[in-house]
Amino acid sequence: MTIDTDALAAIDLGSNSFHLVVAREEQGEIRVVEKLGEKVQLAAGIGKDKCLSEEAIDRGLSCLSRFTERLKNVPQDRIRIVGTNALRVAKNSGAFIKRAREVLYAPVEVIAGREEARLIYLGVSHTLSDDAGAKLVVDIGGGSTEFIIGERFEPIEMESLHMGCVSYRTRFFADGKIKRKNFDQAVLVARMELQSIRDQYLAQGWQDAIGSSGTIRNIERVVVARGWTEGGITRESLDKLRSLILSYNHVDELDIEGLKVERKSVFPSGVAILLAVFDALGIERMEYSDGALREGVLYDVLGRLSHEDVRERTVLALMERFHVVKEHAAVCEQTAVTLFDQLQAEWSLKPQDRELLSWAACLHEVGRVIAHSQFHKHGAYLIGQSDLAGFTKGEQEELAILVRLHRRKISLLVLDNIEPSRAKELKRLVILLRLAVTLCAPRFMTQPPKVQAELVKGVVQLSFNDDWPTEYSLGLDMLREEMTLWPKIGFEGTIFLD
Amino acid sequence: MTIDTDALAAIDLGSNSFHLVVAREEQGEIRVVEKLGEKVQLAAGIGKDKCLSEEAIDRGLSCLSRFTERLKNVPQDRIRIVGTNALRVAKNSGAFIKRAREVLYAPVEVIAGREEARLIYLGVSHTLSDDAGAKLVVDIGGGSTEFIIGERFEPIEMESLHMGCVSYRTRFFADGKIKRKNFDQAVLVARMELQSIRDQYLAQGWQDAIGSSGTIRNIERVVVARGWTEGGITRESLDKLRSLILSYNHVDELDIEGLKVERKSVFPSGVAILLAVFDALGIERMEYSDGALREGVLYDVLGRLSHEDVRERTVLALMERFHVVKEHAAVCEQTAVTLFDQLQAEWSLKPQDRELLSWAACLHEVGRVIAHSQFHKHGAYLIGQSDLAGFTKGEQEELAILVRLHRRKISLLVLDNIEPSRAKELKRLVILLRLAVTLCAPRFMTQPPKVQAELVKGVVQLSFNDDWPTEYSLGLDMLREEMTLWPKIGFEGTIFLD
Repeated sequence: MTIDTDALAAIDLGSNSFHLVVAREEQGEIRVVEKLGEKVQLAAGIGKDKCLSEEAIDRGLSCLSRFTERLKNVPQDRIRIVGTNALRVAKNSGAFIKRAREVLYAPVEVIAGREEARLIYLGVSHTLSDDAGAKLVVDIGGGSTEFIIGERFEPIEMESLHMGCVSYRTRFFADGKIKRKNFDQAVLVARMELQSIRDQYLAQGWQDAIGSSGTIRNIERVVVARGWTEGGITRESLDKLRSLILSYNHVDELDIEGLKVERKSVFPSGVAILLAVFDALGIERMEYSDGALREGVLYDVLGRLSHEDVRERTVLALMERFHVVKEHAAVCEQTAVTLFDQLQAEWSLKPQDRELLSWAACLHEVGRVIAHSQFHKHGAYLIGQSDLAGFTKGEQEELAILVRLHRRKISLLVLDNIEPSRAKELKRLVILLRLAVTLCAPRFMTQPPKVQAELVKGVVQLSFNDDWPTEYSLGLDMLREEMTLWPKIGFEGTIFLD
Repeated sequence: MTIDTDALAAIDLGSNSFHLVVAREEQGEIRVVEKLGEKVQLAAGIGKDKCLSEEAIDRGLSCLSRFTERLKNVPQDRIRIVGTNALRVAKNSGAFIKRAREVLYAPVEVIAGREEARLIYLGVSHTLSDDAGAKLVVDIGGGSTEFIIGERFEPIEMESLHMGCVSYRTRFFADGKIKRKNFDQAVLVARMELQSIRDQYLAQGWQDAIGSSGTIRNIERVVVARGWTEGGITRESLDKLRSLILSYNHVDELDIEGLKVERKSVFPSGVAILLAVFDALGIERMEYSDGALREGVLYDVLGRLSHEDVRERTVLALMERFHVVKEHAAVCEQTAVTLFDQLQAEWSLKPQDRELLSWAACLHEVGRVIAHSQFHKHGAYLIGQSDLAGFTKGEQEELAILVRLHRRKISLLVLDNIEPSRAKELKRLVILLRLAVTLCAPRFMTQPPKVQAELVKGVVQLSFNDDWPTEYSLGLDMLREEMTLWPKIGFEGTIFLD
């Protein structure tokens, strides 16, 4: 089979369903070639121990093995696979991700709730007419519900709340019985969740409310089939739908035109959540859009390929929010990247590693906003815990690790959760970052030092094409001191002076 | 013995010496009545396991028992006892503090390095003429050295670095031998430490450099005795002092006019640090000031008594730095304080608890700057790890605990390190804070609800003097939901509606 260099693909490992979309890039736009979806119900397989059951893992993997057949002609670097809430919360999701990687020959990236929201908006906004009015986009998933307000392709508000049709089924309709009391309790609890975003969203405002994904698509299908609307979902049609659902005793009995069999069990919980959304946000009417997370992932891949990387903006925003001194960060960043370029080939580092190192250099002092003492630890906390648009959980963790290890003792414990081959690469990045930070320790430097790094019999040898060593003799001492810490993680360094 | 209502006292449990100062307040100024100092060498008693030895603890306690005799006529609320670096780093400092409390009948407060710097400046600035020029104050202690730039009574830059005459003696002169190589290494390492503040301090600038505390006082005494200066320490006199020290082979042999016997062992390390300070900051001359940490503590007590509490300003600065929405914080704070006043007597809470609750209410949303998800945990991290001027470590920890427990499940683990009687009080504050936050959940409220709390047979009963319950019916549901979490920590709540 030949590789189609214009093809790209996204897989969305949702809490309720897995979705695959394969597309081709044509004049910068995306034409969908194939779409597949399977109701894997990963979230339903999470037990009281917060672990995915063996059955759920098997369901997931066998779905993925069916998906892989469709990926064979897509270039490796144009495939992205993202996992959402179920993989965020399951304690053993690492085991699933490892096996999924073996099936797919590509990494699975778990993304945070707000990143999911951003990607959903990207997917939805590309399906809509390009008018200027603000839009509210709501996506009720299996384990979380995303809320975004945006204009054109630009998200303004993004949030992900802990409520979804699968988790609410487990919580309020566990035995499948439909009771008015449980239904109303589900609506109430969802409204309470919504309190945390309500005022901010109302203050921001929007013109059109748009729903995406399976739950809202199914609700629309039913209210249209019933003749309650001619398209879209109205407040009135939702009230009627509530009464209709409450007229049944058990989810298995739900015999409603437009409702797919496999959707029955999560239908009441999905309707309850949507009712709460209409209530809390005062929505009268919602349209359905075909764009969703997976389309957003495709557009995100496309953006990165054309150098519109949202992660750049995220790093800048973080520096701004936490008052990072930009001049010093810039000098460190330039030095780090120079060193990277000099050693990349010998250390077989990837282009993505260059980006990671560059961002770590930009952010290495972010923790000073909390306190000078231990600021590398504070920085790692801020980076690890903040919502970083465009970053996967894994990238975020690696960025936090680099910042954590950029000064003081190099604690190997921090790398415990990283697989060995990757840990090896990260250690090399740590060395590059520490070198850059040490070289730029004379903070009043406005230009990066003219430094040359090379590997001589496995030893990192530094030399200078300027008067850095004579001008900053204390810097030279600090550099020597720094190199005494390297053997602990298997590196050696030396300074070559004329 | 009669209590002298104008007396006040401070004890400084330093890493090298313990100091007591008793004073009287006269027309808003402080007149020192008595000063005592003992070289306890707490830091020298910290072993490789980072624990204080039994001997060091005994030395400390027997010194304190001598101090207590001088405290008998000082009112309880006008005594403050602060611990610095040795107690910050020792793993078993909790044990020492507990026993010290029994000896002193007053709590020992461990303060952070920057808070120490602030108090030192407060002490020094009150001894100086009130002219407008900026001053650099340096205080070389046993385990840390503080650097402050300030004008009049206002500190501008504050930092505490991990270097002190006791810790550097252990590191570079452990066997008591005086070697040129070790001495120069000590200067070099100290200069490296100073790199982190050097540029910022130079950019800020100052007119006069002033030293405080024992190390610098001894150095001045020696250079004056030698006739190298007529007062103060010059760069030249320090160089001569270095040569003089290096002419000896062992600290025990140091027979230098003006140098006290008990100061011998920490003299070379102290001189090495001061040399590094002169080098790094380009100081030519330093004067000695008699004001120090303990005097600063006295002025801080006085400030609090006259309602100039620096902690108020700290809380405001933190809200500013981390972008807290002030209007909402204010409504929560007013509600929390109202509830406190209604239940204070029945729950026997102290006036300090009211302040703590008020600050927690102001800061409860600070973690949202990191992420919405788990923001109570992020807030606790920010509060626990930031430098909070005016706060002791203990107060900071309690503030973090209140914010940590202000929403979601009430995890009792968080209270594990708190002694039971205090944990009981903190739980009451947690209930008050949670109540206030829940009552203010409708975020668009501009006025606190007119709520009335009372204890009826041990149950917290809420009633309303306004239409809160009818206007915010969802709020009422959330309040009921909130109260279902209380029994877990031993509380019960009920809502009384007309």
